[in-house]
Amino acid sequence: MMLLESLRRQVLEANQEIARRGLAPHTFGNASGIDRSGAQPLVVIKPSGVDYASLTTADLVVTDLDGKIVDGHLRPSSDLDTHTLLYREFPQIGGIVHTHSEFATAWAQSCQPIPCLGTTHADYFHGPIPVTEALTAEEVSSGYVRNTGAVILRRFRSESLDPVAVPGVLVAGHAPFAWGKTPAEAVEHADVLEYIARLAFRTTLLNSTAGPIPTHVSEHHYLRKHGPQATYGQR
Amino acid sequence: MMLLESLRRQVLEANQEIARRGLAPHTFGNASGIDRSGAQPLVVIKPSGVDYASLTTADLVVTDLDGKIVDGHLRPSSDLDTHTLLYREFPQIGGIVHTHSEFATAWAQSCQPIPCLGTTHADYFHGPIPVTEALTAEEVSSGYVRNTGAVILRRFRSESLDPVAVPGVLVAGHAPFAWGKTPAEAVEHADVLEYIARLAFRTTLLNSTAGPIPTHVSEHHYLRKHGPQATYGQR
Amino acid sequence: MMLLESLRRQVLEANQEIARRGLAPHTFGNASGIDRSGAQPLVVIKPSGVDYASLTTADLVVTDLDGKIVDGHLRPSSDLDTHTLLYREFPQIGGIVHTHSEFATAWAQSCQPIPCLGTTHADYFHGPIPVTEALTAEEVSSGYVRNTGAVILRRFRSESLDPVAVPGVLVAGHAPFAWGKTPAEAVEHADVLEYIARLAFRTTLLNSTAGPIPTHVSEHHYLRKHGPQATYGQR
Amino acid sequence: MMLLESLRRQVLEANQEIARRGLAPHTFGNASGIDRSGAQPLVVIKPSGVDYASLTTADLVVTDLDGKIVDGHLRPSSDLDTHTLLYREFPQIGGIVHTHSEFATAWAQSCQPIPCLGTTHADYFHGPIPVTEALTAEEVSSGYVRNTGAVILRRFRSESLDPVAVPGVLVAGHAPFAWGKTPAEAVEHADVLEYIARLAFRTTLLNSTAGPIPTHVSEHHYLRKHGPQATYGQR
Repeated sequence: MMLLESLRRQVLEANQEIARRGLAPHTFGNASGIDRSGAQPLVVIKPSGVDYASLTTADLVVTDLDGKIVDGHLRPSSDLDTHTLLYREFPQIGGIVHTHSEFATAWAQSCQPIPCLGTTHADYFHGPIPVTEALTAEEVSSGYVRNTGAVILRRFRSESLDPVAVPGVLVAGHAPFAWGKTPAEAVEHADVLEYIARLAFRTTLLNSTAGPIPTHVSEHHYLRKHGPQATYGQR
Repeated sequence: MMLLESLRRQVLEANQEIARRGLAPHTFGNASGIDRSGAQPLVVIKPSGVDYASLTTADLVVTDLDGKIVDGHLRPSSDLDTHTLLYREFPQIGGIVHTHSEFATAWAQSCQPIPCLGTTHADYFHGPIPVTEALTAEEVSSGYVRNTGAVILRRFRSESLDPVAVPGVLVAGHAPFAWGKTPAEAVEHADVLEYIARLAFRTTLLNSTAGPIPTHVSEHHYLRKHGPQATYGQR
Repeated sequence: MMLLESLRRQVLEANQEIARRGLAPHTFGNASGIDRSGAQPLVVIKPSGVDYASLTTADLVVTDLDGKIVDGHLRPSSDLDTHTLLYREFPQIGGIVHTHSEFATAWAQSCQPIPCLGTTHADYFHGPIPVTEALTAEEVSSGYVRNTGAVILRRFRSESLDPVAVPGVLVAGHAPFAWGKTPAEAVEHADVLEYIARLAFRTTLLNSTAGPIPTHVSEHHYLRKHGPQATYGQR
Repeated sequence: MMLLESLRRQVLEANQEIARRGLAPHTFGNASGIDRSGAQPLVVIKPSGVDYASLTTADLVVTDLDGKIVDGHLRPSSDLDTHTLLYREFPQIGGIVHTHSEFATAWAQSCQPIPCLGTTHADYFHGPIPVTEALTAEEVSSGYVRNTGAVILRRFRSESLDPVAVPGVLVAGHAPFAWGKTPAEAVEHADVLEYIARLAFRTTLLNSTAGPIPTHVSEHHYLRKHGPQATYGQR
């Protein structure tokens, strides 16, 4: 019987959604999920360099939180060590999606955080979408992929950011990572991040001095979708 | 027998048209219509947070002009109070569409009105497409959604704008609202507003000093589509 | 028997191609063709405000060169008088297409000609794509549509432009017109004009001082596709 | 029996991929491949001005390295002499693709190389994507197409570039050429080049002083996909 069947299906769907929403051309992206219910948490992740179209649940790779392969006949995504570090450090999250979506990646390449310029941003991200520092030469040579996770973590620590309230980040000169409670929520956040990045790109070109919306507006929007007083949707 | 069957169908189609024309990703948008024929005018509106693809006429919510639910088993759109205020204050309109279309939203986020830079604009909007002020902290806390309608109204009052001649507005830091005699006309106006916003974005980048077209041209275009001397189409 | 059956089919196809290539949203565009073989030249043109999807050859309107309707039960395109003026003044052309394609229209709204920034431009247009002056108040009131043709003609006369070598123009604050030997060639030119406008928009943003390519290159490209020494394609 | 059947199929597929990926409107693009196994190397290339949709393997033209036609009933692509020069000078390559893809062409028209602004760029191109000089009047008149190859070669020689590490170039005022070990790899490189050009366009507009990513990052990315220590994919 295949290990973690339900999580495999969720991770497969999240990977297919990356392709369906156009968030990563070729094989430049990957989704993973974690099952924290057992004694040993298990990560399910896309194999490296495999097309989204031909991917099956059986191709997915299962590892432990140190990246040791537990099940699977293919090599895991080359970004595995970033995923596992984030799962170790952000215990609230259950899915991670890495894309090369075009506008979010342009912001990452510009090495600038995306300011909160409107209510769509405020509905999903509490404050600016942060950008990491570049990795040092030492960090690249001692473990590039793991240290990609480390610079993300450093940014969240240095600004005391909550990964639930800020479900994504731009890695400077690289591309975005997003996450959520489930793989499906992670890919939704990756998609919304791209939408926000498109809006912010155009807003910035129209008005180079456009500042963030007033805090009383962004707080209202964030709180109407999150927390006990949420009023949006059919709950 | 289902109340307001014809209006429900029109509102359903307008909501589906939002998705078909790509005017709002996910569930970021909504359309409504009003039946003013009875003693008590009735508003039909999209339920909150429901996908356009699965929406049926039976899911739509019917309310009175104060937003009290008259029929429906789902919660109405979280933007309901903006719709009802506009219906109360603009008695000429029969449908309202709220989108997060990408270029109109970028203009809204830039807090700038869209100047009348060409004849397509002049065919549909008499003068610039206005942008509201930001809501104050007091307005947010005392009724955010209703006061979104109030800042729209304030802009129309302060500039003596006619909602028939100016069938849409940008809410600063948020997104556009458009309206019309029917839900179908409202969604057409929302779509044209987005088209105009795209053109104006590019025009502004090409020529930062591009001014409005001469009044004698814009007046000619507006009047050929509106009023007794209209010459466009098969009338 | 329906008059001009073959030309009707060509004009229908050119109108459908406008929609298929996304050159005009809604009904913002029109194509026409002319039969100059008889004693009285006859123009076939799209009716006003009719959807491209439902258009049939029987809906097309036939007029003489003064715009008098010879055959048809619908009103002709509101742009008819621009078409007939161009047919009268440019005897070499057999088809005209008017679009509101997005980048060409942005250039028209910016009131700037499109400089010849690359070889694709040079393959199709000999020199910059010209932009007209704005119509005066007198020109608008005395015959807006005819005078739209008149300002096009004035630009071609004042710069001694050959309508075969320059098969299109930007009407300031409005949108492009393109033409060709046939309706099919006219719509191809309208499509290439839009492509050139997109490239030029981006080139200009990347390098605001980008100038035209050297004349020895643009002349070579223009001549390889036109005239007796043409080397392109299967001729 | 048709000469070079397998190579013909690869070249046909690469040409169709140009259209499928939207890398060249109309017939503005072409792919070729080379068989170096025989005493006389043979080039298979698209015929000139033929639609991608109707193209068959039998339409492809076979020439020797001097462009002399060996097999085929149609005229070869007008860019043939650029292809043959590159095959003569870059013995490592087996396929060439020329496109007019929109953002790469805008960079070519801006006469600027694309700096290495991110890891996607570094995964595929070692250093900036170079841009040629414009052809001189003498070069245009003495052999425009061959000399398009010559200016590419001059740029690679003057900067000591390796065509395997830099599998593409921008021809100033014209458009990109890309190449690879096979026609399929050439079209993949043409597609990635366009993606990189889109990202770099937006990055540059967001941050006009955005510089290349640190060398220790770009080297790491280039080497993980190339050379003996490659770690990407299923090898």
